[in-house]
Amino acid sequence: MDATDLADAVYEAISRRRDVRAEFTGEPMPPATLHRMLVAAHSAPSVGLSQPWDFILVSAGTTRARFKDHVDNERRVFAESLPAERARTFVPIKVEGIMESTLGVVVTYDPERGAPAVLGRHAIADAGLYSTCLAIQNLWLAATAEGYGMGWVSFYREPFVQHLLGLPDRVRPVAWLCLGPVEKLQEVPDLERHHWRARRPVEAAIHLETWSGDVASRGASDQ
Amino acid sequence: MDATDLADAVYEAISRRRDVRAEFTGEPMPPATLHRMLVAAHSAPSVGLSQPWDFILVSAGTTRARFKDHVDNERRVFAESLPAERARTFVPIKVEGIMESTLGVVVTYDPERGAPAVLGRHAIADAGLYSTCLAIQNLWLAATAEGYGMGWVSFYREPFVQHLLGLPDRVRPVAWLCLGPVEKLQEVPDLERHHWRARRPVEAAIHLETWSGDVASRGASDQ
Repeated sequence: MDATDLADAVYEAISRRRDVRAEFTGEPMPPATLHRMLVAAHSAPSVGLSQPWDFILVSAGTTRARFKDHVDNERRVFAESLPAERARTFVPIKVEGIMESTLGVVVTYDPERGAPAVLGRHAIADAGLYSTCLAIQNLWLAATAEGYGMGWVSFYREPFVQHLLGLPDRVRPVAWLCLGPVEKLQEVPDLERHHWRARRPVEAAIHLETWSGDVASRGASDQ
Repeated sequence: MDATDLADAVYEAISRRRDVRAEFTGEPMPPATLHRMLVAAHSAPSVGLSQPWDFILVSAGTTRARFKDHVDNERRVFAESLPAERARTFVPIKVEGIMESTLGVVVTYDPERGAPAVLGRHAIADAGLYSTCLAIQNLWLAATAEGYGMGWVSFYREPFVQHLLGLPDRVRPVAWLCLGPVEKLQEVPDLERHHWRARRPVEAAIHLETWSGDVASRGASDQ
């Protein structure tokens, strides 16, 4: 594959990728394809080559149903925290596809992997968590490129998931990912389609040399 | 591009990607290419569509030299914390390409973006940091696909970088990324080539249904 095709393909996967909730079909995934995606996740960079992630594949309906009950409750907690207008906007927004997706993939972070002398982590305790997230994005792009969908569920309390999956105390769940075949991928993010929030122009995120320096001389108002 | 080509390309970018320190050439990057890569980073998923990241492009030699001095000092701090054998292994390992790379890209996290009611963050305070890391991995894969190299420097204290770049107190630097053309990408990660640490087999990271369940019935020893 030549360089232009490679770049085009990566950009296509990056722009097609969506955070999926409603479009899962529940159809099976070939084990070899799932393994390929997990190898891709496991190929992520990590601080000190610690590879501090694990992937727990959850297909059991009972486990997923218990998680969904917990998530439903956290959804209510969030809804009740909102002002009336925002609460109305929130009503039609689906926040998970736990039961409809083919598989739950819970990605965890183990701070003892490679410890105590993790090269590059002595000054930044969170660096291992960051590595775990890089693996998640690899998985997300691999799934998109395979024609699957993935959705990150974050309406949960970490201790609940630790207990549900028997995680050691030191191991943090970082994401519950719903994964599997989809009817389609939406072109516009759900939260934008439902008028929860509009996307920010990329230009607003680019600064030159320092926080206050940028292309459009945005000035002091954004500081 | 058909589905197989798309998946092949994404897997190729994921496996080619390296954490680059020594291979930067310092050659310029076309502004349009840099912009394309930043758009890819900005296309990452984010909790509540908060897009809490910013990208500070640092080319000024004075800023980079000040950062490098700080990193050199943190390198010494880490080296002095190591037992003798590990300290000897650490000596030849280069941990940054700050001055040799074409550009520093500092990625930051702003917890006030979209706050207070960030959808999906009420139960997990770190979810916004996680989003920021997803943008970093998009940038890394885009750079790899463009034939460039990228290296994440994490030998720094956050307050130093906040002061150096004039970040508001609430904004955390998440990564200093060295970016630019490279002579080549290594095939084996630096830390493995230098016998700092071997890569973990992917099978060891995969668990079925719960932490203690896995393909090879690893059993209690890994818990």
